[in-house]
Amino acid sequence: MNFIAKLELAQQKNNSLLCVGLDPVMERLPPLCRHEKEPFLSFNRALIAATADLVCAYKPQIAHYAACGAEAELLATIRYIKENYPDIPVILDAKRGDIGSTAEKYALEAFERYQADAVTVNPYLGGDSLEPFLRYAEKGVVILCRTSNPGGADLQGLMVEGEALYLKLARLAAGVWNKNGNILLVVGATWPEELARVREIVGNIPLLVPGVGAQGGDVAAVLDAGLDPRGLGLVINSSRGIIYASSGDDFAVAARQAALDLRDEINRHRHKLS
Amino acid sequence: MNFIAKLELAQQKNNSLLCVGLDPVMERLPPLCRHEKEPFLSFNRALIAATADLVCAYKPQIAHYAACGAEAELLATIRYIKENYPDIPVILDAKRGDIGSTAEKYALEAFERYQADAVTVNPYLGGDSLEPFLRYAEKGVVILCRTSNPGGADLQGLMVEGEALYLKLARLAAGVWNKNGNILLVVGATWPEELARVREIVGNIPLLVPGVGAQGGDVAAVLDAGLDPRGLGLVINSSRGIIYASSGDDFAVAARQAALDLRDEINRHRHKLS
Repeated sequence: MNFIAKLELAQQKNNSLLCVGLDPVMERLPPLCRHEKEPFLSFNRALIAATADLVCAYKPQIAHYAACGAEAELLATIRYIKENYPDIPVILDAKRGDIGSTAEKYALEAFERYQADAVTVNPYLGGDSLEPFLRYAEKGVVILCRTSNPGGADLQGLMVEGEALYLKLARLAAGVWNKNGNILLVVGATWPEELARVREIVGNIPLLVPGVGAQGGDVAAVLDAGLDPRGLGLVINSSRGIIYASSGDDFAVAARQAALDLRDEINRHRHKLS
Repeated sequence: MNFIAKLELAQQKNNSLLCVGLDPVMERLPPLCRHEKEPFLSFNRALIAATADLVCAYKPQIAHYAACGAEAELLATIRYIKENYPDIPVILDAKRGDIGSTAEKYALEAFERYQADAVTVNPYLGGDSLEPFLRYAEKGVVILCRTSNPGGADLQGLMVEGEALYLKLARLAAGVWNKNGNILLVVGATWPEELARVREIVGNIPLLVPGVGAQGGDVAAVLDAGLDPRGLGLVINSSRGIIYASSGDDFAVAARQAALDLRDEINRHRHKLS
C-alpha cells in the first residue's frame, strides 16, 4: 500500500484530517517528562497515546531532535507509533534537499534509518534532486510549495512567465515529477487564496497545511480553499497548539482535548462544504 | 574573527583555495578503516592529517553520517579538526532550511551541537528563514544559488523579470540579506558562465564551488569565471576525487597527492590570471 492510500485510510478510520506535529522543546516539557531519562520520548508517547484515534498522521520535525542529539528518541518515537498504531502514517519533517548520491543518503536517513512513511523535501535543487526520494514508490514525498512564513514570498512569489514560482512548482510536481503518484505538497494555512490556486492545478494531490493555530491560519478558509472534489486531500498540521495545550502534568489530557476540538472544528466546516 | 576572515587566513596560510569534502561511505572505505570501531572517524582523521597543510576548509556532508546514525563520528571529526588544526574552518554541508523556531533549532544543530564554522542553507523559504542562521554574525552562512546538477535549472534557471532566478537570489543575498557580512553562495563548477554572472553581482562575496573532478567541472574555467578582483573569493570543493583517490590502505598518501595536485593546478591558473 502506498503512502497516500495509507493516509486516506487513516483519515477515514479516524474521521480526521488532523496531523499532530511532534516538536518537543526541553524548556517547554511538563515537569513529569523533563526529569525522565528520555524526556522527548516520554512526552511523545503520552501525546500519541492520547491522540492516536483523532489524527490521520504524526509529523515529527527532525531539527528538534538533531539540535540536542536526541536521534535515538526520534527513532524510538517512530518505532512506538509503528508498534502500537501501525495504521497512522509518520511524516518526517526534514525539508531535505541535495543532489545525486547525497540525496540518496538523505532518502536512506528518512526511509530506512527512521522508517518514516513520508518525508518533506525542498525543491530548489530541481527534479533530479528529488528522484532518489521519489523512487521509493510506496513512500510519500512532500514537496515545499508555498510556505506559511511572510518571507516565503521572497522566492516563491516571484513571477515566472505570468505566474508565481510556487504555481510553476505545483505544475512540475503534479506533472512530470509525479511518475510514481507519491507526491504531496506543502502549502501554508496563512495563504488560503494561494492554497486555492494550488488546488486548481494539482487535482487530488494531498496538501500538507501547516500554520493553523500558533501561526494564525484560519480553519474555515483553509478547508474552503484546499479540499479536493472528494472532500479530502488535506492534512492539516498543528504542533504547538496541541502538544503545549497545557504546560503542566495534565499535558496529555489537554492535548487530547485540543486535538478533539480541532478535528471536530475541521469536520464541521468539511460537512458544511460537502 | 568572523568566518570569512578565518577562511581567508587559511587560504593565505596554506596558499590554497581547495576545500576537501569529508563524505565517507562504508562500502568505499579502505579495509584498514572498515574494521575499526569508528570507521568514518578513522578515515577522516587520516585524511585530515594528510591534507591539513593543503586546504582552506573541510566540508563534511551530514547526510553521509545521518544515513547510518554516525552523528558521534561527525562530532568527533569536527572536534579533531578544531583540536589539531584550529586555523582550518569547517563548513557543515547540511542544506538546511525551515522557518521560525525550527530554523533556530537547525542553527543550534550546526553551530552549537557540531560547532561548525559555517553551514550550507537552502533559500527557498526566503529571507526570514535564513535570519536565525545569519544572526550568528561570526559564523558563515553558505546559501545555495546555482547548484551543479542538470536539474538545478528547473527552478533556479526560470526567468524572473528578465533574469534567471539564481541571479535574483544572488542580488538578495549580496544585498538586503547580508547585514552581518557573513553570507557566501554555492555555485556549481559545471556552470562557469553562470558563475561569472554571479561574480558580477556579488562583489567579493566568497563562492563555494562544488563539482570539479567527479562531476566534471573544469578548474581553469572556474577560476577564470569566479575569482574576485583580489584573486580570491573561491572555495573549490572536491570530495570523491580526493578521499577515494585510492581504494586501498594507501588512501591517505593518495589523498595527499590528489589534494596537492588539485591545489597546485588551481594555483597555476590563479597565477596566470593575476
